[in-house]
Order: sequence, then C-alpha cells, then structure tokens
Amino acid sequence: MRVLAIDPGYGRCGVAVIEKDGGKEKYIYSDCIETLATSPFDERLSTVADEVKRLIEKFKPDALAMERLFFTSNQKTAMQVSEVRGAILHVASSAGVPTFEYTPGQIKSATTGSGRADKKQITQMIHMLLKIEKAIKHDDEYDAIAVGITHLACAR
Amino acid sequence: MRVLAIDPGYGRCGVAVIEKDGGKEKYIYSDCIETLATSPFDERLSTVADEVKRLIEKFKPDALAMERLFFTSNQKTAMQVSEVRGAILHVASSAGVPTFEYTPGQIKSATTGSGRADKKQITQMIHMLLKIEKAIKHDDEYDAIAVGITHLACAR
Repeated sequence: MRVLAIDPGYGRCGVAVIEKDGGKEKYIYSDCIETLATSPFDERLSTVADEVKRLIEKFKPDALAMERLFFTSNQKTAMQVSEVRGAILHVASSAGVPTFEYTPGQIKSATTGSGRADKKQITQMIHMLLKIEKAIKHDDEYDAIAVGITHLACAR
Repeated sequence: MRVLAIDPGYGRCGVAVIEKDGGKEKYIYSDCIETLATSPFDERLSTVADEVKRLIEKFKPDALAMERLFFTSNQKTAMQVSEVRGAILHVASSAGVPTFEYTPGQIKSATTGSGRADKKQITQMIHMLLKIEKAIKHDDEYDAIAVGITHLACAR
C-alpha cells in the first residue's frame, strides 16, 4: 500500500510518498512545491496540479490522501485552497487513483494518539515512525507526511 | 472572439459558447452538465471537468469565463463548487486557454445594465441579444450564457 499524501496549497504545497509494507511505514519521498506570489493564480494552481500528476506517474501510488479543512477564518484563501484541491482531485481521478480526505483532528489523532497534539509533537512522532534521510525545510512537508501516516493507519 | 462560459457546479453546471463577430454577439452552444447525487464527489467533479475539456477541444474558445461567488451561506457547498472551479481552471490552463472570472454583480450589470436585475430580467435580455433556437431547460444554462455575454462586453 503506497500513498501520495498532500497538504494542499497554492503558495506552498507539501507532498509525500509513504508506503506500508509488512506492518511498517516506510518513507519514500517528500517535497514542498512552491509557487511565486507574483504569478497569476491559475498558473500557480497548474504548477501544483502538474507536479502532482508527475508524482502519480513516477511513484504509482495506490491512493491519494489530502488534508481537508472545513472551517476557516479567511474565506478567500479557503476558496483558493479548495480550487487547488479540486484540480488535484481531477488529476488523481483521471489517473484512476482513489482519493481520501482527512481533517486536522483525524491527522493529529492518527499520528500522535491525541486530537489536540501540536506541530512539534507531530514532527517528533514522524521522526520516530519514519527514517527520513533528507532535511525537511517546511511545515507543509511535515503536514503531508502526517496525512500519509494517517491514511496508512486508517486504511488497514 | 469566442468564449466558453461556465456557471460552475457539481450537480448542475451550465456551459455556453458565445462569440462576438463584427460587434454582434452570436450564440453557438449551451448545455447543462448534470451529475448524479448518488455518485462520489470526485467522480462528479471529473464528469464536469472532462466535459469542459471536450468543449474546449470541440469549440476552441479564445477564453474561458466563470462566475465567482465570494460569499455564501453554505460553506460546504462553496468549497465543493470551488473544487469544481479549480479542476476547470486546470483543464483550461493545460489547454492554454486564458481564464476570467466575474461576480454576480458584474454579470447583472453587463447583461441588463443594472446590478440589481433579477433572473427574469436577465433571461429576457439574453433572448433579446441572442438568437437561441433550442429550448433551455435550466437556470444554470442561462447563467452560463450571461457569463459569456459579460465576458464579451468586458473584453472589448
């Protein structure tokens, strides 16, 4: 079972590939797709969606998992993140990859055992669960890895 | 100047193709893409996005125009409509078609001259401006046509 996990965004979008083999999670890949704030929105959205398409072709995941926010204070940002999520859903669907969505609460519970864990606790747990050789620069990348761990925990 | 205009939605999505030739708007095509409420959301989203892709290939528009809502009472619906819009933006961008968005106020003003026009006034004005041979079943189709008229009026 291999999952492509995504923390969707149009400025920074965390992506991670994790798999479960014989009950043990294994880190394969992660990155943070970044786009320029000076670029038009549809270009930024397409940069993210095209990179997700490339990752699907490269890593051939069995599933794509994304974080889903239900409530937010900034409605414009929420709409634009939803637009990115829609483009990703279509890319996955076109490639025949089933999609799954998890809320922040589900992600916290699945990675740390507590629905009220903070970012630091999640990061520590990720390093306990997975052997990650590369340096991780942004929170978005950790968030994507946490989504992947959640999916593997939920998709037993 | 030919525009593919869209009233985005995942249950019903209005689509219209209109062009302006020598200062006169001309109706080419319109339809309402419908999806089943019993289908999974990503399937409904892909049905809409794939049909938009087919229309771009068939009608080769110079631009794609969509209605954009900024505020709404139902946040879940708004997010899902945003997701559909994102999938459409990516389809258009991948095909090299520039995208434009108009608010309901802009659409009312451009079609009727009044930002407070009701649906009936918009429908009457559409029939005054365009020769439409087919029977139009749903409001979504009229809404898409109004988006197209707005784009042609704004993109002088």
